[in-house]
Amino acid sequence: MGIVLRGGTVITADSEYLADVRIEGSTVSTVGQGLVRSGDTVIDAAGCYLLPGGIDPHTHFDLDVGSTRTADDFASGTQAAIAGGTTTIIDYAAQARGGTLHAALAEWHAKADGNCYADYGFHMGITDYNPAVADEMSQMVAAGVTSFKMYLAYKSLKVDDKTVFQALRRSREIGALVGFHCENGDAIDMLVQEAIEAGNTSPRYHALTRPAIAEAEATNRVIALAEMAGAPVFIVHLTCKGALEAVIRAKSRGIAVYTETCPQYLLLDESCYAADGFEAAKYVMSPPLRTLTDQAALWNGLSAGFFDCLATDHCSFNYQRQKELGRQDFSKIPNGGPGVEHRLALIYTYGVLTGKITLQQMVALTSTNAAKLFGLFPRKGTIAPGSDADIVVWNPDASSVITAAAQTQRVDYTPYEGWRQRGRAEYVFLRGREVAKGGTIRQEALGEYLSRKPFPIRRED
Amino acid sequence: MGIVLRGGTVITADSEYLADVRIEGSTVSTVGQGLVRSGDTVIDAAGCYLLPGGIDPHTHFDLDVGSTRTADDFASGTQAAIAGGTTTIIDYAAQARGGTLHAALAEWHAKADGNCYADYGFHMGITDYNPAVADEMSQMVAAGVTSFKMYLAYKSLKVDDKTVFQALRRSREIGALVGFHCENGDAIDMLVQEAIEAGNTSPRYHALTRPAIAEAEATNRVIALAEMAGAPVFIVHLTCKGALEAVIRAKSRGIAVYTETCPQYLLLDESCYAADGFEAAKYVMSPPLRTLTDQAALWNGLSAGFFDCLATDHCSFNYQRQKELGRQDFSKIPNGGPGVEHRLALIYTYGVLTGKITLQQMVALTSTNAAKLFGLFPRKGTIAPGSDADIVVWNPDASSVITAAAQTQRVDYTPYEGWRQRGRAEYVFLRGREVAKGGTIRQEALGEYLSRKPFPIRRED
Amino acid sequence: MGIVLRGGTVITADSEYLADVRIEGSTVSTVGQGLVRSGDTVIDAAGCYLLPGGIDPHTHFDLDVGSTRTADDFASGTQAAIAGGTTTIIDYAAQARGGTLHAALAEWHAKADGNCYADYGFHMGITDYNPAVADEMSQMVAAGVTSFKMYLAYKSLKVDDKTVFQALRRSREIGALVGFHCENGDAIDMLVQEAIEAGNTSPRYHALTRPAIAEAEATNRVIALAEMAGAPVFIVHLTCKGALEAVIRAKSRGIAVYTETCPQYLLLDESCYAADGFEAAKYVMSPPLRTLTDQAALWNGLSAGFFDCLATDHCSFNYQRQKELGRQDFSKIPNGGPGVEHRLALIYTYGVLTGKITLQQMVALTSTNAAKLFGLFPRKGTIAPGSDADIVVWNPDASSVITAAAQTQRVDYTPYEGWRQRGRAEYVFLRGREVAKGGTIRQEALGEYLSRKPFPIRRED
Amino acid sequence: MGIVLRGGTVITADSEYLADVRIEGSTVSTVGQGLVRSGDTVIDAAGCYLLPGGIDPHTHFDLDVGSTRTADDFASGTQAAIAGGTTTIIDYAAQARGGTLHAALAEWHAKADGNCYADYGFHMGITDYNPAVADEMSQMVAAGVTSFKMYLAYKSLKVDDKTVFQALRRSREIGALVGFHCENGDAIDMLVQEAIEAGNTSPRYHALTRPAIAEAEATNRVIALAEMAGAPVFIVHLTCKGALEAVIRAKSRGIAVYTETCPQYLLLDESCYAADGFEAAKYVMSPPLRTLTDQAALWNGLSAGFFDCLATDHCSFNYQRQKELGRQDFSKIPNGGPGVEHRLALIYTYGVLTGKITLQQMVALTSTNAAKLFGLFPRKGTIAPGSDADIVVWNPDASSVITAAAQTQRVDYTPYEGWRQRGRAEYVFLRGREVAKGGTIRQEALGEYLSRKPFPIRRED
Repeated sequence: MGIVLRGGTVITADSEYLADVRIEGSTVSTVGQGLVRSGDTVIDAAGCYLLPGGIDPHTHFDLDVGSTRTADDFASGTQAAIAGGTTTIIDYAAQARGGTLHAALAEWHAKADGNCYADYGFHMGITDYNPAVADEMSQMVAAGVTSFKMYLAYKSLKVDDKTVFQALRRSREIGALVGFHCENGDAIDMLVQEAIEAGNTSPRYHALTRPAIAEAEATNRVIALAEMAGAPVFIVHLTCKGALEAVIRAKSRGIAVYTETCPQYLLLDESCYAADGFEAAKYVMSPPLRTLTDQAALWNGLSAGFFDCLATDHCSFNYQRQKELGRQDFSKIPNGGPGVEHRLALIYTYGVLTGKITLQQMVALTSTNAAKLFGLFPRKGTIAPGSDADIVVWNPDASSVITAAAQTQRVDYTPYEGWRQRGRAEYVFLRGREVAKGGTIRQEALGEYLSRKPFPIRRED
Repeated sequence: MGIVLRGGTVITADSEYLADVRIEGSTVSTVGQGLVRSGDTVIDAAGCYLLPGGIDPHTHFDLDVGSTRTADDFASGTQAAIAGGTTTIIDYAAQARGGTLHAALAEWHAKADGNCYADYGFHMGITDYNPAVADEMSQMVAAGVTSFKMYLAYKSLKVDDKTVFQALRRSREIGALVGFHCENGDAIDMLVQEAIEAGNTSPRYHALTRPAIAEAEATNRVIALAEMAGAPVFIVHLTCKGALEAVIRAKSRGIAVYTETCPQYLLLDESCYAADGFEAAKYVMSPPLRTLTDQAALWNGLSAGFFDCLATDHCSFNYQRQKELGRQDFSKIPNGGPGVEHRLALIYTYGVLTGKITLQQMVALTSTNAAKLFGLFPRKGTIAPGSDADIVVWNPDASSVITAAAQTQRVDYTPYEGWRQRGRAEYVFLRGREVAKGGTIRQEALGEYLSRKPFPIRRED
Repeated sequence: MGIVLRGGTVITADSEYLADVRIEGSTVSTVGQGLVRSGDTVIDAAGCYLLPGGIDPHTHFDLDVGSTRTADDFASGTQAAIAGGTTTIIDYAAQARGGTLHAALAEWHAKADGNCYADYGFHMGITDYNPAVADEMSQMVAAGVTSFKMYLAYKSLKVDDKTVFQALRRSREIGALVGFHCENGDAIDMLVQEAIEAGNTSPRYHALTRPAIAEAEATNRVIALAEMAGAPVFIVHLTCKGALEAVIRAKSRGIAVYTETCPQYLLLDESCYAADGFEAAKYVMSPPLRTLTDQAALWNGLSAGFFDCLATDHCSFNYQRQKELGRQDFSKIPNGGPGVEHRLALIYTYGVLTGKITLQQMVALTSTNAAKLFGLFPRKGTIAPGSDADIVVWNPDASSVITAAAQTQRVDYTPYEGWRQRGRAEYVFLRGREVAKGGTIRQEALGEYLSRKPFPIRRED
Repeated sequence: MGIVLRGGTVITADSEYLADVRIEGSTVSTVGQGLVRSGDTVIDAAGCYLLPGGIDPHTHFDLDVGSTRTADDFASGTQAAIAGGTTTIIDYAAQARGGTLHAALAEWHAKADGNCYADYGFHMGITDYNPAVADEMSQMVAAGVTSFKMYLAYKSLKVDDKTVFQALRRSREIGALVGFHCENGDAIDMLVQEAIEAGNTSPRYHALTRPAIAEAEATNRVIALAEMAGAPVFIVHLTCKGALEAVIRAKSRGIAVYTETCPQYLLLDESCYAADGFEAAKYVMSPPLRTLTDQAALWNGLSAGFFDCLATDHCSFNYQRQKELGRQDFSKIPNGGPGVEHRLALIYTYGVLTGKITLQQMVALTSTNAAKLFGLFPRKGTIAPGSDADIVVWNPDASSVITAAAQTQRVDYTPYEGWRQRGRAEYVFLRGREVAKGGTIRQEALGEYLSRKPFPIRRED
């Protein structure tokens, strides 16, 4: 006995066809015509798209940022993910300065295990690289953490180029992919200091002290270091034309560079910082929102296939009491915003329905490519025999308005308040289990930890 | 009762999974585990890849070039295609100067119908654009010819920019994609004339009189005209770094530009023209073979996803008596070479096995993307329920040497004489019928004409 | 006995120093300290810059455009030039369709000889290339017309690529420089026709039917043809980022490409076409005014040294009765605007005083480089012993407002009405004769025809 | 009474004309015709070019590099400079780690004062930036040291991005120009360490561990930091296509970036490292010699005007006993080579006479632009009234062969052994005194310290 999603249109990263999808146990067993057998549970998917469950490879849940903790923890964050059609998230664990990777991994397991409604994996952020950490990296890969992250910005997190190079060299040996937050932290730190000293403390100075050229520079640098190290490289949350051009130049000369952007950089822009009073704090994130020219470049890049992933960098803080910590000093505003819930609907509404990208590109960007880059494919990221039955029955005709009041994310605002969203996840299946129906989330934390496969280093790398 | 390809690894443009593929009639009915039922014909595909049948969107069979006729006609050409794992070809029909498109289409049907071993469609080459032809274009679309081609080179074929612009405008109205042979014919004609007048008549002057900049220029121009016309555009057989850079610039600014290259431009280079005596004539094709720098740029572009299709531009002439027509004057050497047979094996051997591209990219480049661009998807170009059962059972362990003596192509040489090729099409299915097994082609011309769907013009175009 | 300009600061394209300049007869004899001898006429230049007389290499005086004739003829045009500090102009003679170059040259001499207040030379526009014209080209060079021009736009003027290539080849043989008006005329003609048919007849459609990409394309094309022809090439009135990028790409690969822009493209922008009613007709010129992004790119290019010349493309028509010919149809508006008079003051005010370029760059752009490219150097274009004593005593402290009422140009408007201009030509010397003082022009047509030297073809070209 | 250089052709960065040049005392008083007066010393310069004395803005004389000291000190180095037509050098003083700038300046004065045959100035290398050093910078400017240098490579010298940013900000306040040695030292240090550990100790690993991308990256980064700091920036010894492209991109977006290259990067290439045995050590310098592709890009850039200066980075070590320090370990080979002597002849022979650049460009690159960028103009860098009479009478017809045996440089080899050089400095005048004649150098150290002017920060910077 199984479950048959009947009569929907299967959408994968390269295809689109009418078929039944039969689920047996936790996986898809067959795809084809006339798959219903007696005893099966049948879900009528006529008129709907069957999408591989979304994968959000960039979240920060239950994160202590020193002055406060993110509004969403793994429970609320993954509930929001499920609500929006995302069945897997990869959260950023982070080594404490002086701490080990093992300790960080243990801490993240403690936060997530048993609390997740979606499946989950971890990237490991490295802030304090040394020979012992290099050793630990291979143990992380063995533990299913096959991707790492380093920051070129943020005083307490940033690493120097030697560390970047060494970590890339190491990643190549152990089959891992290293992602980078690309902003020139040194320059930004100075600009921030100058701004504060000059009394320029309101939120909009957050953006003014993090210019696009600081990101373009760091992106170019990390790619050069990867080229010298002979390692692939991942650029997280790319936001501006200059950085994208660095990526395109690198691709043109044969470098294995992968990149993601986020809905906020495609849909919002620097004009948000002109908001009256302290409202602009809602948009304080790093990198900041950019110009309309940058936005257009990102859309063109998405359409052209220059991007691999559309992530959210979900890192939510309430406007009240959390963002407000920086009322007197923008540099004290916790960085980040919510997003895991609305990713699919936003890209569907503003990307697919506007003709900027295809449904296939939407699936590739929101699911398949992340699965491939982060060692989950073909278990995740597609609808195919043998794959986990992580499936979203997407009703393309639904329409609603995004509001903070109506959202599942546990945060007191949304940057998209009042925006129209088209499409809805009518059903969400996670490993064959119906975890959401008609917008109601099953109250059971069924999410499992995903031990991910190593990154396949190209022979020529 | 059906046919089950059992235990192979299905490869699509985005995926790779172990599964049975069940064929009922001419199409795939189901994909999944345990699909064999009693009465089924079972093909053991263990250890093999199941690839969507190849689609070669650029052939010239049975083509009269004035002084002679191609060595391969539709029978021999499509037999060679089948032998190599290509189940669909799209041949270039060509309007005669002063003739109608209808006449050309009728002529091509007369040449192909009943003679094809692979399925086939036609692009329509337009050399004499006028209001009547513009009218005919929509009738061609209705007849399933949804792509056109124009030449910016060749004295007798080339069209001016006004015609390019008008045809692009028209294509947008009727849902067609126009491809262009991009070389600046005016400059080339002058260079050829100068060379001949200077007594530089040997084959290598073919390449010297068709510099890469002539292609880069024309590519840039056609894209600009498409941008102004608001139409998508296809660049056939792109061969050089400068042209690829024009494509990348265009993609970066959001233009819907699609492009193909060919194995000969990836694997051979200008050093072929240094061959002693008249041997270089074997490599006389337009555009000509380029430098190693260009070659590297093409591989990088293939790896980065800048190309859509890998076609062959198969246009074979025997070295004896045909290429020799130009022994006294390179400009009289019939342009073109064979290739339809070895495309899959070459890209598998020199692209996939060297780590330059993935199996998924191989499928995308040799099948899926052509199906999408030219209105055959998802009927062709994938292995999925409902799709035509055009499937290649690819044995990755086979190895052989390419020789003219052993080839199916009906031509007295191959540019790849003595080259090692890995992989082999153990079985080839065309719409559910086994048309080749163990290298032996079924002697029955089962190929059908493919009426193709219009090109979906993007809303924003 | 001579004239000594005493105590000014000599400005050349590379230098700046305090010195007396002694004029003997028509030329500068010495530059240095303490040059006054008894009997000399002494002009006190203290506090002033001594600039080489301006050279405007792009004017259209007394030009019949079919429906009307330019407002300025050689007399009024060169008076305006002198008033603004320009002592040499190079006007575009133009072959009539079917006519000879000799006839055109004779016609232009008839218009100019005896009527010019500034020295003058001619470029020769070729619209009807054939072997006889190719022959005539060398005779033109012998007659001192060492530069030619071709149009890629305008129905009645445009030439095809074969002609471009042939003319470039020819120019290389005879030591000439060919300039090109770069816009893709075929595409523009179609866009214009479509606009008119759609009833879009107001002036702003002039700009909308001449998109920047049409210029970028044609610029890229002409450069490619020059590269293939092994000839240097000059791009007239470059206006947009895309075209400048084509130039930079070409320079980067070693092509001898030279280019000019004009004050209107640096100072005005497309918002001029939003003017109420028919006012926008004042700005109807080809190429049209562009975006602010283009404008910024031009300024950056000027500052970086990517441009050689700042010309005016002076081609004035009265708003009353002339521009108005196109009141019902923008395509009938005579193309062009005035400018020869205000070039130096505009670039001084908005380029030098804003810090965008140096005084040396101003001299290079407005005088020296034109002299070099067009065979007048070092007779013109510098202040040095042996050079013609064409000198402007520039008072940097003067300030006034540009108005049509106050201008010398014989046209009923100026695009810069009400603009502040800094600096003024206190004295203007032409070959040692004072032709203007304090804004008053000497009423004597002293201008002589300049037989120009051939273009020195680089050995490697 | 004065000296008159009679009948030569004066060459400046923008001009070329026949004239006498009259010297009175230490400066040029007049330029013009017929300047000889009774009592004058007359030098017949007929048939010769009169060039402004060369300025080499990049030398390292009498430099202690720890394991050894450069072969040339200020005496021998400036004698070699004079012999080759260079009358001014700017040497790099260098702060000791923990030391002050004042101490470094005092040390350099001690080394140079009284020992120089050419005039000299100092840049100040900063390796240990802190608030006290920032203070000192303005005192350096007051002392005539108006340019600074920082290293992004070399373990003991390299500074971090924060320091780069701060120093650039500071330079903007005080009117200084900061130059950078652009190579990513972190990556290079790791590559070197890996090479040594792998037993790859021969000289060619010097080049293999300093890839061009390390320079391109650092160049791009420094420019970005300058952009954020709003300061101009100078790139020393640029050697590769990737770095030049970064410069061009920056110029295109309006950044005030200036750059130099050196003859060795134009004339030699990586094939030098293939020399047998230890010979390759002669070419060990940083950055290393590059590919022919890079070389071509540099020549194109020189021709196009993308470079400001042609310096030598003269830093000579004898092959015997000095270069040999690294016989067992390439990283111990003292970095650098000789060059100050042959710069003018090399660029004249291989740049001007081959048609790649003009005589004017030669003067601009070897003299004028350095004078402008480094606060010496118009005292140095031109031949004009009031300028120092630093003049080279250049005999264009001379021809000789470069050999170590014949050179003035006090080093036991030359990279150009056996190369033909055209042209010769027949006379060299320094501030009006004849310091060399017919190749014989006057044995008197007449060189004076040059207190240089601040860098004029552009208003818009």
